[in-house]
Order: sequence, then structure tokens, then C-alpha cells
Amino acid sequence: MAESIRILGVAGSLRRGSLNRALLRAAAELAPDGVSIEAFDLLAVPLYDGDVEAAGDPEGVAAFKAAIRAADGVLFACPEYNHGVPGVMKNAVDWASRPPASAALSGKPVGIIGASPGQTGSARGQSQLRQAFEFTNSYCMPQPEILVFRAHEKFDAEGRLVDENTRKYLARYLAALAAWIGRFRDGG
Amino acid sequence: MAESIRILGVAGSLRRGSLNRALLRAAAELAPDGVSIEAFDLLAVPLYDGDVEAAGDPEGVAAFKAAIRAADGVLFACPEYNHGVPGVMKNAVDWASRPPASAALSGKPVGIIGASPGQTGSARGQSQLRQAFEFTNSYCMPQPEILVFRAHEKFDAEGRLVDENTRKYLARYLAALAAWIGRFRDGG
Amino acid sequence: MAESIRILGVAGSLRRGSLNRALLRAAAELAPDGVSIEAFDLLAVPLYDGDVEAAGDPEGVAAFKAAIRAADGVLFACPEYNHGVPGVMKNAVDWASRPPASAALSGKPVGIIGASPGQTGSARGQSQLRQAFEFTNSYCMPQPEILVFRAHEKFDAEGRLVDENTRKYLARYLAALAAWIGRFRDGG
Amino acid sequence: MAESIRILGVAGSLRRGSLNRALLRAAAELAPDGVSIEAFDLLAVPLYDGDVEAAGDPEGVAAFKAAIRAADGVLFACPEYNHGVPGVMKNAVDWASRPPASAALSGKPVGIIGASPGQTGSARGQSQLRQAFEFTNSYCMPQPEILVFRAHEKFDAEGRLVDENTRKYLARYLAALAAWIGRFRDGG
Repeated sequence: MAESIRILGVAGSLRRGSLNRALLRAAAELAPDGVSIEAFDLLAVPLYDGDVEAAGDPEGVAAFKAAIRAADGVLFACPEYNHGVPGVMKNAVDWASRPPASAALSGKPVGIIGASPGQTGSARGQSQLRQAFEFTNSYCMPQPEILVFRAHEKFDAEGRLVDENTRKYLARYLAALAAWIGRFRDGG
Repeated sequence: MAESIRILGVAGSLRRGSLNRALLRAAAELAPDGVSIEAFDLLAVPLYDGDVEAAGDPEGVAAFKAAIRAADGVLFACPEYNHGVPGVMKNAVDWASRPPASAALSGKPVGIIGASPGQTGSARGQSQLRQAFEFTNSYCMPQPEILVFRAHEKFDAEGRLVDENTRKYLARYLAALAAWIGRFRDGG
Repeated sequence: MAESIRILGVAGSLRRGSLNRALLRAAAELAPDGVSIEAFDLLAVPLYDGDVEAAGDPEGVAAFKAAIRAADGVLFACPEYNHGVPGVMKNAVDWASRPPASAALSGKPVGIIGASPGQTGSARGQSQLRQAFEFTNSYCMPQPEILVFRAHEKFDAEGRLVDENTRKYLARYLAALAAWIGRFRDGG
Repeated sequence: MAESIRILGVAGSLRRGSLNRALLRAAAELAPDGVSIEAFDLLAVPLYDGDVEAAGDPEGVAAFKAAIRAADGVLFACPEYNHGVPGVMKNAVDWASRPPASAALSGKPVGIIGASPGQTGSARGQSQLRQAFEFTNSYCMPQPEILVFRAHEKFDAEGRLVDENTRKYLARYLAALAAWIGRFRDGG
């Protein structure tokens, strides 16, 4: 495809050394030609509060919605906390789903990847996040899936993804995601 | 039962006029003799951040964990946002599940109720929240369930629960929850 | 669109008088011009058994896979049993997902609707079914959704959908599903 | 505990060589003193059909309900198919939840374990099954959990669990399950 594809990356952990932030950096590096992934930092998005919203979106929320609208698709790097989606990640989606500009996520192609130190590779976190995209009317790519298990063993001390298998699968995932996004953009 | 039972109430919405805050107030009013329900306001609990946690629990988090430990059980009033648990509610559980004092929720009897303006009465929000309690090793009462649908029609302008059927079911729920909590306290 | 769209309908209940069978009949009647919905009866599909499968797909299973392949999309009418997908419905998907011809559901556009006598309109049944389509790589339409609550009040004694609101929403749903299927067929 | 505890074991796969059947056999072998685990074979339980049920429970279903009622608790060995509970397993729960004798699962302590050849060890299958027990009012032990990943590497050619770590965790799980069941029996 001749045109470039811009993907917004969102990691569901605020910790600087987060494995999912690191996974998103690896994704930016492994994206196919013509595809860029730029991360949005959720530190800017406060807890959802309908009373605050009624007075106007906080700056970070407005920026988040604008970044989603400007992107061709969104890639979520989702941890698993307590068998589910982290509150931090769901909170960002809760804001993004709200009017004004409820269309930020509606009709937007999205992908989910995730990493965890445990064995399941964030599977249950990803499952709960995916359910949100039914309601927001986002087009969530069903396959392939990226579940980076024992993730602490797959990044080096600088947070660089060094596991070759994971790099290979992530590169394939990103090629599939680019095609998925392209399908909706062209068909739009 | 001779001894009193203290229940901590937690509403998953920060909005002052929240239907789930109002449902929790109704629960406090309808609790059986010997059972008290005191609400903890999640406005005090910031977004989970592992770097912040590493420097020590913020004051609101420490207070939340202490309130859970001091209670015999916890009652969560859970909205449904985007087909799932609100980020605000999950975020509070994410903090409460963490060391030090990871035992705050472990072995604690809990109940879930919820209200929504729509038809499903927060069913999908409650389902996702319940999954968290598998991991925190909390004892979540399976039945009965309280799904207050079209909730905006069931509270008056002052946020008082005026629907007689809902009041009756909620009173029954609270009697069952008290027995559930008592079972674990006595059997502890 | 000039070309016709053929949708396979699958109801997740074997009972003759099933509300979800009736919902599927209503869908066939309300389908837009150029769209046909033909029901496949799951009475023909036995319980999944890997040993049976190893000896060759039973006749009903082979017919089910062939019907999926021949259709442009599949519409599932899903009850809610015990807060989740009925075993009968999931069992059919389990067979359809298996090789040979694992491609039956892969890349196939699908939709989910559902009815229940209770208040939630099969919401939790639909949620669990939807998770299966992540794995089968089916393209499940996120919105709109059809949750027919108190469904026994909305069909007459002959099982005909008589509630005008539900008929209107179902007709809109089917128009959206036809567009969703068309998008993937054209974009193929 | 002086009194013995009888646990009914139910594997969610019909295949003779099933890893979850094998896991259940290992559980029977590793059960603590005074605890017996007897398997019920789901080959006897047909697909749920309300019309069949109206004419009286089929023999296998009646036997399944009776076995549940006679047991102090039930242990489910649950595979993951298509990111969720196998139809075969959910179908058995759907039958067991129905009147007459709807009390078969109500108030019954249950546990869930599971094995899968993949990395997640049946996590998503177990999650969906657990949701059913909310509705059936069964008391499902939240922790510990047994997710046997890469399970094909952990059993020998005769289907005997040979992985020492898994044997150790399973033995601990069974001790916890016995205590969980005892808690409800004594407190009943």
C-alpha cells in the first residue's frame, strides 16, 4: 500500500519500567514499512468523573480523543491485573467512549497485544478489554494474538525485546494489523 | 446473630449524583438489624502506578486498605461502562490487591450489586468485577443478584430509592449477604 | 447492492418453541431486499468428541461446516443459560472451528442476537459466544446489538414477533449486518 | 478431619485420551487422606433439549444430578476451546442447573482445574465456567488455581501425570479444596 498508516499506541500501565510500555516500543521498531506507531502516555488521563466531564474534558482527555481521531487505528498493550483489564487501561477507554466526540473510537480499527510475567501472557486482561470494543463499535482484529508470557525473561535490562520468537510473532502481528486497518480505510 | 457485622460499601462511580452511590445509600438504610454499611469514597484513590506504590501507598490507598481490613465484608455497587467494569472501580481493586497488606481482600467475603439506566442493570460490569475476586481470593456471594435496570426511574430527585420492588429485593440481598459474611467469620 | 447476500441462521436452543428459534424466523422475515436468512437446525450436530472426529466428521457436522462455507455470513441467535453461552451453541462452534475445513468460520463475518425471558436479554450469553469468534478468526459485528428482554411477552402464541419496537430494531440490525458482510466480501 | 469427603470429578472432554481426564485421574491419586474423587463420565449426558427434559430427565442426566447431590463437592477439569468453556462441559452444567432437583448444584462447593496444550493452561475456559456457578449458586473456590500449560509434556504415554511441580501444586490444591468443602459442610 502506497499510503502510510498511523497507529496510536496505548500501554495500560503507568510504571516507567512497564513490560507493556516496552512491548509497545518494540512494536514501533518492528512495524512494517509505511506504518508508524506513536505512543500516547496515559499518565495524562485522570480518573473518569462525570462531574468533571460535565465541566469539559480535562486537557489530557481531549488530547487522547484527538490522538485517537487522528490515527488510522489504535494498538493497545494490555497487562492483566487480577484476572482482568487494568483499571488504568479501562479508565482510558471509558473516557474515550464518551461524548463529545464519541466517534473517537467508533468505527476505528483496533488491535490488542499484551505481556505479563506469568504464564497466561495477559490473556484475561485482553479478553475483558476486547469486550469494551463491542460497545464502542470499534473493529477489533480477532487474530493473530500476542500473549507474551514470562515477559520479564524476554526483555533486556534496557527494556528492549530480545526474544527472537516474540520479535518474529510481533512483526507478523503488525503486518496483519496494518492490513486490517487498511481494509477498513479503503472500504470506509 | 448477637455480634454486629460491619460492611464497607464501595461505589464504582465518582459522580456525586451517581445511581450506584444512591444504591449504596439505600443499602445502608435497608441493612438488617446489627448490620452497618459505611461507604468509602473512591475519590481518595488515585490511578494505580507501580512507581508511586514503590515509594509507599498514597494516603487514600492506605485508608482504603485499612477500611477493608477493618470491615467484616465489602459491598461493591458496580456500574457497567462499555460492557464491563468501570476503570474507576477496577483501579480501586487493583490497588487493594497489592502488597503490603495484600491480605486486605484475601479471604474477605464480598458482595456485588449494581444499577444502570439501561436494560441489563450492570450485568456485564458485575461479571468482570467478579472475575477479579477469583485472583484476590475474596469470597464473592454467588446469589442472589441485584441488577437495577432503568435505574433512573427508581430513584427520586434526591437520589432516594423509591421503587418498592427494588427495596424489597435489596433488603433480601442484604440479609443474605449478612449470613454469607457471618458464615465465614464464624467458620474462619 | 446488486448481488444477493446469503446468511446462515443458527439458534442456540433445540426446543421447538424456543424464543431464539422464533427470533431467527422473525429475522428471516425482516431481512432487507437481496438478503436471505436460512436456518440450520443444531439438532443435527452431536456433542463434540475428538475420538468421533478422528473417524471423520458426523453427517450433521459436515453439513454444518458446508452450510457455513456456502454462506456469506452467519447470524447466531443466542440464549443465556447460567450467565453464559448455552452448551448447545458453544458445542456447535467447537465443531465448526475444527479441521478439516477449519476455514469454515475463519474470515467469516458473523452477527449475534439473542432473546431471554429475563431482564438482560441474553447479554451474558452473547458476551461468551463473542469471545469464541476471536479464536476462530471470525469478524463479529460490534454494533448494534439486539438484546430481546422479557421475550416471552414479545412473541404471540404462534411464535411470531409482534412487538413493534423489537421488529424495528431487528430490521435495522439486519441492514447493518448486510452492510458488514458486504464490506468483507467486497474488500476480501 | 475425621469424616471423609466425597468429591465428584467431571472432565469437560469426551475423548478417551483427554488431558483433562488424565488430570482428574491424577487428582484422584493425589487426594489427601479421607478425601475420595470419583469421576462421572459426561458421555452419558446428551445435548440439552427442553422438549426432552419436559418428558423427564434422560437416564444419564438423572444419574449426573444424583451423583452431584450425593457428593460433598464437585471438581471440574475444564479444557479451553475457542477461548472459552467447551460446549460439552457447559452443556452438563446447563442440565444440572435445571429443575426438578435444581438444588443439585445450589449451595454445593465446587472447584475448577484445567489443562491445555497451549500456554494459557485453559484460563479462559475456566473463567467462563466459573461464571455459570454464580447463577447456579455454587460456592466456587477462588484460590489457588491450577492452569496446566503445555500439558502434553507433563503426562506420559499412559496418561499419568509425571511433572513433579504439577503434582505438588495439584496436591496443595486438593488439600485447599477439601478444607473449602469442609467449611461449607460444617457451617451448612
